[in-house]
Parts: sequence; C-alpha cells; structure tokens
Amino acid sequence: MVVQQLMVQKGLRYRMYQELVPEARLRGISVANMLVVTLVLLSFLFLALETEPALNSQPHWQAVFRVFNIFVVAAFAVEYLLRVFIAGLDPQYAGIGGRLKYMTRFYSIADLLAFLPELVVMALGLGVPLIALRVLRLFRLIKIARFVPAFDIFGAAVKRAGSQLLTALAMALMLVYVSAVALYFIEGVGGEHQESFASIPRAIWWAIATLTTVGYGDVYPVTPLGRMFASVIAVAGIGVVALPAGVFASAFSDELRERQEAKQDAVAHAYTAQAERTPEGTVPLPGTSGNLED
Amino acid sequence: MVVQQLMVQKGLRYRMYQELVPEARLRGISVANMLVVTLVLLSFLFLALETEPALNSQPHWQAVFRVFNIFVVAAFAVEYLLRVFIAGLDPQYAGIGGRLKYMTRFYSIADLLAFLPELVVMALGLGVPLIALRVLRLFRLIKIARFVPAFDIFGAAVKRAGSQLLTALAMALMLVYVSAVALYFIEGVGGEHQESFASIPRAIWWAIATLTTVGYGDVYPVTPLGRMFASVIAVAGIGVVALPAGVFASAFSDELRERQEAKQDAVAHAYTAQAERTPEGTVPLPGTSGNLED
Amino acid sequence: MVVQQLMVQKGLRYRMYQELVPEARLRGISVANMLVVTLVLLSFLFLALETEPALNSQPHWQAVFRVFNIFVVAAFAVEYLLRVFIAGLDPQYAGIGGRLKYMTRFYSIADLLAFLPELVVMALGLGVPLIALRVLRLFRLIKIARFVPAFDIFGAAVKRAGSQLLTALAMALMLVYVSAVALYFIEGVGGEHQESFASIPRAIWWAIATLTTVGYGDVYPVTPLGRMFASVIAVAGIGVVALPAGVFASAFSDELRERQEAKQDAVAHAYTAQAERTPEGTVPLPGTSGNLED
Amino acid sequence: MVVQQLMVQKGLRYRMYQELVPEARLRGISVANMLVVTLVLLSFLFLALETEPALNSQPHWQAVFRVFNIFVVAAFAVEYLLRVFIAGLDPQYAGIGGRLKYMTRFYSIADLLAFLPELVVMALGLGVPLIALRVLRLFRLIKIARFVPAFDIFGAAVKRAGSQLLTALAMALMLVYVSAVALYFIEGVGGEHQESFASIPRAIWWAIATLTTVGYGDVYPVTPLGRMFASVIAVAGIGVVALPAGVFASAFSDELRERQEAKQDAVAHAYTAQAERTPEGTVPLPGTSGNLED
Repeated sequence: MVVQQLMVQKGLRYRMYQELVPEARLRGISVANMLVVTLVLLSFLFLALETEPALNSQPHWQAVFRVFNIFVVAAFAVEYLLRVFIAGLDPQYAGIGGRLKYMTRFYSIADLLAFLPELVVMALGLGVPLIALRVLRLFRLIKIARFVPAFDIFGAAVKRAGSQLLTALAMALMLVYVSAVALYFIEGVGGEHQESFASIPRAIWWAIATLTTVGYGDVYPVTPLGRMFASVIAVAGIGVVALPAGVFASAFSDELRERQEAKQDAVAHAYTAQAERTPEGTVPLPGTSGNLED
Repeated sequence: MVVQQLMVQKGLRYRMYQELVPEARLRGISVANMLVVTLVLLSFLFLALETEPALNSQPHWQAVFRVFNIFVVAAFAVEYLLRVFIAGLDPQYAGIGGRLKYMTRFYSIADLLAFLPELVVMALGLGVPLIALRVLRLFRLIKIARFVPAFDIFGAAVKRAGSQLLTALAMALMLVYVSAVALYFIEGVGGEHQESFASIPRAIWWAIATLTTVGYGDVYPVTPLGRMFASVIAVAGIGVVALPAGVFASAFSDELRERQEAKQDAVAHAYTAQAERTPEGTVPLPGTSGNLED
Repeated sequence: MVVQQLMVQKGLRYRMYQELVPEARLRGISVANMLVVTLVLLSFLFLALETEPALNSQPHWQAVFRVFNIFVVAAFAVEYLLRVFIAGLDPQYAGIGGRLKYMTRFYSIADLLAFLPELVVMALGLGVPLIALRVLRLFRLIKIARFVPAFDIFGAAVKRAGSQLLTALAMALMLVYVSAVALYFIEGVGGEHQESFASIPRAIWWAIATLTTVGYGDVYPVTPLGRMFASVIAVAGIGVVALPAGVFASAFSDELRERQEAKQDAVAHAYTAQAERTPEGTVPLPGTSGNLED
Repeated sequence: MVVQQLMVQKGLRYRMYQELVPEARLRGISVANMLVVTLVLLSFLFLALETEPALNSQPHWQAVFRVFNIFVVAAFAVEYLLRVFIAGLDPQYAGIGGRLKYMTRFYSIADLLAFLPELVVMALGLGVPLIALRVLRLFRLIKIARFVPAFDIFGAAVKRAGSQLLTALAMALMLVYVSAVALYFIEGVGGEHQESFASIPRAIWWAIATLTTVGYGDVYPVTPLGRMFASVIAVAGIGVVALPAGVFASAFSDELRERQEAKQDAVAHAYTAQAERTPEGTVPLPGTSGNLED
C-alpha cells in the first residue's frame, strides 16, 4: 500500500517535474509553463489598464482589478511552492539544504519577488501607494525570460555585435552632438532666437528627433540657413544614426540562425542518443543522471 | 450539322476555358481574367470615391456611382455563370453534381459573394444602409488573389519567417511596453502630469509612434528627464522595433526568388514535355488528362 | 597655306569633337561637358531662387536673374550650334543630310528645347507668363542625363527589379488600402467622426503618411480602438510598405556594381587593344572607324 | 647617484611614453589617454550644459562651470607640456629642433588649440564673448580622434563607397528637386496658394522632410492632387533617398570588419615577432628602433 501510494506520488511528481522544469523538455514549452507565461502577460495587460483613469475611476473596473490581482498573487504563490517542492527531484536540490540552495537561485528569487511584496501588502492591509508595487511587477518579466528565448538572444546579440556596435554608436552620438551645436548657433544664438534651440541640450532633442526620423514636429528650424543645414544633416546623417540599429539587427539575425541550427542538431542528437541508450524502454529523467534519492 | 455545331460550341467552350480558368495557362494571365482584375481594382477605386462627401453629395457623381455599381454587379454575375458553365470541361466538375461541387469551392463562394448581396438589395429595392454592403466588396480581393501571386506569397513569407518573426515581434513588443512604462512614470505620474502620458496604454501609443519613427507629434515628452529617456529609447530601440519588418522583408524576398526560379523551371519542363508528347500536333487540354466527357 | 589652315581647323575640330562628344572618351567627362553640366545645375539653382518671393521681389535680384537667364540661353545656343557643326566628323552625320539626321536625335531635340523657347520669348519681347517657360527648363535634365550615369542606372534598376518590384508594390498598395478602409470605419464612420477620416481617400492619406513613417501629424486616430488598430498596422505594415524601396535599392546596388566591373573591363580592354593596334603612334578617332570623310 | 637618478627618470619617462603615445601600444588605450578622452567628453557635456539658460542663470552653476573650465584648461596645458617633453624619446623628435618639429604636427596644434585660447582669455581677464571661445572647444574632437577609431573609419568608409555614394546622392538630390518642383506648382502656384510651398526652395524643405521620412508636420500638401502626388513620391521615393545612407552603412560595415580582421592579424604577428625576438626578456620600445639618444 505504502509502496503503491509512493509510486503514484512519485509518478505525479515526475509528471509535475516534466511540466514545471523547463530543462526537463528537449524542446517546446509545457502546458503549465505556458499558463505561467500567459498569466504574466495578462498581469502586464492589467497593469497597463489599471493606470488608465478612464477605467480605474469606475467601481466596476476597480473590482475586476482587485480580484485579478488577488488571483495572480495566489497563483504565483502556489506556483512558487510547487517549484520548491518539486525541485527536490533533482539531486543537487534534494533535502532541505538543497531546497535552500534552490531558493537562492536568481530565477527563484525573481519568482518570489513576483508575488511576495503584493502578498504582504494585501495581508497587512497597508495603505502603501500602489504605484510603487506596480513597478515591482516588472520583475515578472524575468519569470518568463526562462521560456522565451528572445530575452536571452537580446543580450547575446549585443555581445556579438560588440565593438562594431560601440563604434557605430560613438559615430552616431558624435554626429548628433555636432548637428546640435550647429543648429544651436544658427537657430538659437542667431536666427529668430527660437526657444527650442536656445541651448545645446535642447538642440540635441531636435537632432535626435530628426536623425532618427521620428520628427515629432515640436522643434524644427525656421531660418533658411537652419533649414539648409538641417537638410544636409538629414540626408547625410540618417544612415549614420541608423548604423547602430543596423549592426544590432544583423547580429541578432545571425545569432538567431545559429541557435536554431544548433538546437535542431541538439534535438536530433538527443533523440538519437535516447533511442540508443534506452532500447529496453527505460526512460531516464532528463536533468538528472537517472537515479533519484529524495 | 449537329456534329459541326457541337464542334463549334466545343471550340468556343475550349477557348472560354483557356480564357477563364487560370490553371489552363502555363504562365501569364488571360485577357478575360485581366478584365476581371481591372474591374475589381476599379470597384475598389469607386468604393473609395463613393465615401468621399465632396463627391457623394453631388447628384452627378451619385448617378455615376449607381451606374458603375449596376454594371459591376451585372458583370460579375455573368462571369460567375460563365465560370460555372465552363467548369464542366474539367472532368471532376462535369455534370450537375460536379457543378455543385465546383460552386462550393472557396473561390467560387468568393465569386458569388462578390455580386450577390448587392444584386439582392438592388432587386428588392431595399433601403439597407449601403455602408454594410460596401464592406462586403472587400471580398472581391479574393477574386483577384487567384491571379496576383503577391497575396499567396504574403502568407508563405510569414510562414517561412516563422519563429524568427515571432521572436523579433516578442522583443519589439516588450521594448514598446517597457518604454511606455518608463515614460508613464516620468511624464505622466511625475513631470508635468501630461494627459497624453497619464496611463500606460496612452504611453504605449507614444512608444509605438516613436519606435516606428512615425512621430505624429501629438504626444512627446517635455521634461528634460523624459526627453533624455526618449532619446536613449529612440536611438537604441528603433532597430529592435524594425526587426520584425526586416525579418519579414528578407523572408519575402527569399520566397519570391525561389518561386520565380521554380516557375521558370516548371515552364521549361512543361514546354519540353508537351513538345515530346505531341509530336503529331495534337494539343492536349491542360488541367485535364486529355479526354473530355461532358 | 589652305592645306595647313585646314589641318589647323581639322585639329581644332578634332579637339572639339573630343571635348563635346561624350562617346569620344573612354572614361570620365571632358572639361567642356563638365561646364555644360555645371551650367545646367546652376540654372536649376536659379530656377529655384527665382520662385522665392523674398528674392524675386527685389529689383537687385531681378536683374541678376535676367542676366543669368540671357547668359544661359546664349551659352546653350552656342553649344547647340557647335554640336551640330562638329557632329559631321562622325561619318553617319556628315553632310547636310547627316546634320538633319543628327538634329532629329532625341538628345539633340532636348538640347534645342533647352534654350529655344526662352530665346523666342526674349527675342519677341512677349509677355508670356514666365512660369510656363520655367517648367520647360526641366528638359535640361536630359542634357546632363548623357553624362551622369545615375539617370541611366535608375531605369535599368527598375527594369532589373521587374516583377519583384511589382509584387512588392501590389502588396504595399493593398495594405495601404485595407488599413485606410479599417481606419475609415473606426475613426470616420464611428468614433469621433473625425473630418480627416471622413472618406476612404482621406484615410488613404493617413495610411500613406503612417506606413511610410513620414507621420506629418495632420491626421491621426484619437479613439482607443483606432489607436490599437493603427499600432498593429504600423508595427506589422512598415516592413511591407518599405519592401518596394528595399527591392529597388537592392537592384540599384547590383546594377551599379555590375556596371562598374563591366566598365573597368572595357577600359582595360580598350587600352590593351589600342596599345596593340597603334604601336606606330597613330591614334584612331574613337567613335569612328578611323577614316573621316567630311 | 646621478646615474641612478637618471635611470629612475629614464624609467619614468619610459613609463610616460608608454602611457601618452598611442602608437606605443599594440592595442587598447592607456589609462592616461583614457583620462584625456574622458575629460574631452566631459568638456563637451559641460559645453552643452553651459548654454542652457535654466542652468547658466544660476550663480551656483556658474561657479561649477568656471571651476570646471579652469580645471580642464590646466589639465590640457599640463598634458600638452608632458607630450612635448616626452616626445624626445622618439629619435625623430629629439632635441629642440625635434621638439619644434613635433609641435607643428597636426595633432600637436590641435592639442594646443584645445586650451590656449581660453587660457589667454583667462590670463588677461578679457571680456571676450564666451560664445566664440566655446566653438573652439570643438577642436577637442581632434584630440580624441587619435584614440577613437570611429573617426578614422568614417572617412575611410566614405572613400570606399566612392562613386556609388556619389551616384546614389545625385539620384536622391534630383528626386528631391523634381518632387519639390511638382509640389510647388500644385500647392504653391495652384491649389490653396500655401505659403509653405510658395517657392521651390520652400518646397525643397518639404521634400527633404518627406523623403527622409522625418515629417515634422510644419509643411504638407492639403489639396487632393497634392496629396496624391505626395503619396506617390513618398512610396516610390523613400528608397531612393535612403540609398546614400544604405550605401554608406554598407561601406562602413565592410571597412570595420576588414580592419578588425587586419588588427587581429597584426596583433597576433606582433606578439609572435616579439616572442621570437626577445627570448632573453629585453622589451624593445615600440615606435623606436630600440636605441634612444636624447
């Protein structure tokens, strides 16, 4: 009886391990983790809606926000406890010492910060200004960074672009500065003494808006000379300021392609290896060396 | 006599088949189908003009619109009947059962929707608000999707870009969100309490306009800190938000090149095959296996 | 004496041929033709300045414009006569018949139109509205198109991009149209009934300004739904509308590179061939087969 | 004693040579030169802040600016003297004649101009308008151009792009001109006689803002015909005006990659060569042939 129950429990924990630990899967994302990602994304949507005066002034919406927040905090608390409990299946996190080791991991701390501050405030009924708490919700980004490769690739692409990105950025900033100084003298010191060009920092705002081609239209030269300079700067400079973005985009694209190829190879190898090692039907637990002592 | 007349009719139907069925041609587009495409494009032009108050308030233009609409509906009705009639030349659509099978095809239903709703309204003289009918005219896009490869390629390019497009899109959206949150706190909560940054959704509108470099100028930061953040976001972020577009453009270009090469090969093969199979001058009907029973 | 003078004249005409006929040079541009290009560019600069009310209202500038225009017309008249006179050195344009044949060439007619209309008006002292004459000055573009390869390459690049450009353009236009229809219904028919979205043509103006990222800021959605749609359209659509430009830029770049390589080969061959054919120092007249009968 | 002190001094001068002369290092930048770069960048930041009325009207900030400027001028003066003193270690600049030769180098003059004008004004207590002096500070850019490869690469990339860049630029400018002429006639001469299109130069300002997609929104067509033309110009022309930037970006990227590869090779060679030549531990002074007579 005890043995059987243990087997069931072990089977359930196995299943949960497969569901919760991303490394337990060769590819894709489990249903449970997909739910976590969805919940995080939903909490970002609600964070946005909560700040909208047209909504948060209505009692109806206030109730919706309150219920949703309680639900999210509860869900993330349960998820956290489950993750800590299940971590023991991995030998390196087995026992209480292992659990503590697990809880001090970067991702585990992020998991804790995703619900604890709001839970404390809710429990104590404190009147802490909600706005400070809301910022903490951005930590939930880290929760999903594990599953969404985009975040990881971002950093890798920046690193890959390295000195090229730095050189391009240096050139872009220098061009922005020189353009701003030129227009400051033409439009701010001379010309019609425009308020928007009355200092170099203000002219930098114009230079950024122009050279990135955003062009809000809040600042623009009005004298013929200023327009002549601005035209030359725009035609010649747009390529320079777009350089960092182009360098990064190229590095990102290369990084992504290499990873996809590497992943496909890894998956192919893993399946092959598994097929070779387990012809008798014994499925080893990924992430462990097959023997569990907990 | 009967035989001869049959031959003539058969010859005419052969000709019509070649004109109306796009698959009956190795390449290019027939005169009849070119007319259909032109008529659809013209109907889009008129749909646009009809909505312009400066035109639809003048009796002169109202008459033009009415006549054109009747003409288009009549033309598409005739085209539909012809297509159904001629479809029988293809063995799989022969007979009444075949015709019904033909009429339930996706493209045939689109052909029907392109004229039937307006025909019914015209016939009954109903006072249905025209605006609802006008939307249905967008279904005419499907009519020409058969002949214009661009539509088909669009979907194929999205599929080809696949996970790269998704990753790029995820990064772009996350950057938009984080930028919006930052500016919401700087310009909306703090700063000059700008109405345009008073909530995260409103700040997202700013972030989209800035990071896509559209920059309408209806929303922009005014505090020094906000402008500093916006500058950094603009210089660093434009490349990220342009990534999905770049990934798609690249996939589209690859797809297009491959198709052109494949098509050229196919045409070359088809001509070669035809030349080999029919040295005695017998021209087989493309799309059928050569024997027609109808 | 007569023979010597003829030799001198012939030598002078040889020199003028080398100076005026672009095909007479293996590469680069002669001093005389460089002068013509400079004069055309200057005439464009003056055409622009002449239209500026701040300048053309001042008697001082009016005099400058009058003198410059007379000078340019005279210079182009002299150039035209010289070109016709010198063309005879080429056997195919020798004699009066040859000269007439030369004068009906496309480039010769452009040379004539570059000065004749204004010369006639000046000679007759007519009070013709100057503005009509000014447009004719744009024909001077053709005068320099001979020397500036950019114009020629433009057309070649469009031809090279061919069906790819057409497909990309079709997709871009369709996206513009569909976006405009969507925003017309959201912002014009529904929403706040904005005047700027009150018809599909007006909404197309918004769609063009947005999808090209120009974003003047004269038209933009104000309702939440409109902004949501516009955001999706902007992020997803910018790549599509930028496609034709990208396709063209790529074709232009390829065309340019190939031409440069071809030209370098041609120059290398020409020099080699010349060195082989003329070891005794006889320099053949390029553009003719070496024998001149005029 | 004297000999020992000389050795120490020589050792110190060696160390200073290694620190100050960029060519004395195989790669990277020394701490002293990094300080100089930082100081120049800081002086640009302060130059910008000094022009801001919100700051320079406050006595507190005025004091900060004054102290910082004195510090920078003193630091650059010391740096200059040190550089001249240390230059003698290089045989070609040894002795007083060598020092004079060193002082007339381009970079040495830039070093002098970086502090002398302001030093003179400070010393004499002159009431020279500060604004003229501030412009001279831009010469400090040259001071750091030695250490930051981006400046050098900029010129090399322009040279590399060469005739392609010129052709693309010619096409872009011609398109801007023709677009401006078209809109001048449609919106300025005809249409609503808009002030912003009342001359070709003004229309060029519109064309630049549109074709670079900056789109400030200070000028835009309002007539249906003008908008139609502007739409066609925008969709078709953006690629053309973006061409020069694209050509340059591509050349810059190629140049950068080649240099990095070349530098890596050079460093590898240098280390190999050094390892081969100095197995006994004698480190030769880079930039000199090993023997110093000063």
